[in-house]
Amino acid sequence: METKIYEGRVLSLSVYDVKVEGRKVRREVIKHRGAAAVLAFDEKKRIILVRQHRFPHGYVLEIPAGTLEKKEEPLRCAFRELEEETGYRAKKMTPLITYYPSIGYNTEVIHCFVASGSKKVSDLKLDEDEILSVVKLSPNKVLSMIRAGEIQDSKTICAVLAYAASHSL
Amino acid sequence: METKIYEGRVLSLSVYDVKVEGRKVRREVIKHRGAAAVLAFDEKKRIILVRQHRFPHGYVLEIPAGTLEKKEEPLRCAFRELEEETGYRAKKMTPLITYYPSIGYNTEVIHCFVASGSKKVSDLKLDEDEILSVVKLSPNKVLSMIRAGEIQDSKTICAVLAYAASHSL
Repeated sequence: METKIYEGRVLSLSVYDVKVEGRKVRREVIKHRGAAAVLAFDEKKRIILVRQHRFPHGYVLEIPAGTLEKKEEPLRCAFRELEEETGYRAKKMTPLITYYPSIGYNTEVIHCFVASGSKKVSDLKLDEDEILSVVKLSPNKVLSMIRAGEIQDSKTICAVLAYAASHSL
Repeated sequence: METKIYEGRVLSLSVYDVKVEGRKVRREVIKHRGAAAVLAFDEKKRIILVRQHRFPHGYVLEIPAGTLEKKEEPLRCAFRELEEETGYRAKKMTPLITYYPSIGYNTEVIHCFVASGSKKVSDLKLDEDEILSVVKLSPNKVLSMIRAGEIQDSKTICAVLAYAASHSL
């Protein structure tokens, strides 16, 4: 049985009373449309990141990403978000890793892609409430920031470490 | 300004109307106490995982983890969850990586540790609504399951890839 608590812009919340393996359990569940995130490199093989204000955390350095629009395919969302947030257009997007950030209570799934052939084509096209700037760093610098705990965003960590595990950075 | 929407067992939800860089923005924020997760190895150097029912995803293979109790230190939580969920007691816990699963709208932070000197000391002590079993797999098998998309849980991916990036697995 689902009890709807809240339906919002980014997420909604329901409480479920369900039976699992014969036992009655109550589960609080966040529903989220999912997101796409992009590991992209500029002409000098630096990783293209965005520095963004994330309430209540403050400024956060992360790879470009955004929530899927209604009925939007993750691949299309990846192309769109990269260009909107950084002004770079990719030639190709290759699936890298797909994961659930909080599998215990959140339906959100994040589809990470690697962009190739990225070229700067425009200025940023930000949503009205997006506050961000573009930062480019060498892969080694990003890896050392992850190791030092200076980057703590799951999509950036998952994408960069998954890429590093199968490519030499 | 904060508007409280829901206060639950695992999480609560508020909507904030705030000013960021001079612009008024509305943010939906999940509040969560945070969690600890443990990358532990058995006597044969296999990774100790749990197979757990996660509504609405179904059965999920993941490293042992749990929500911090009120005022509980992440380190203490890591020792406790490893023993409760797997029956293994660690000699030592070393911080591995700390990350925000959904930095855009969720305060949850997950503290991942590497356990060393783990020994089986007891049977599982599960919470009433926990439904899980222990599975031990070689590090290479876990890595190949991450690559194949058969493990899609953020804490398992972050902990295993962060460990693999600095140790030979």
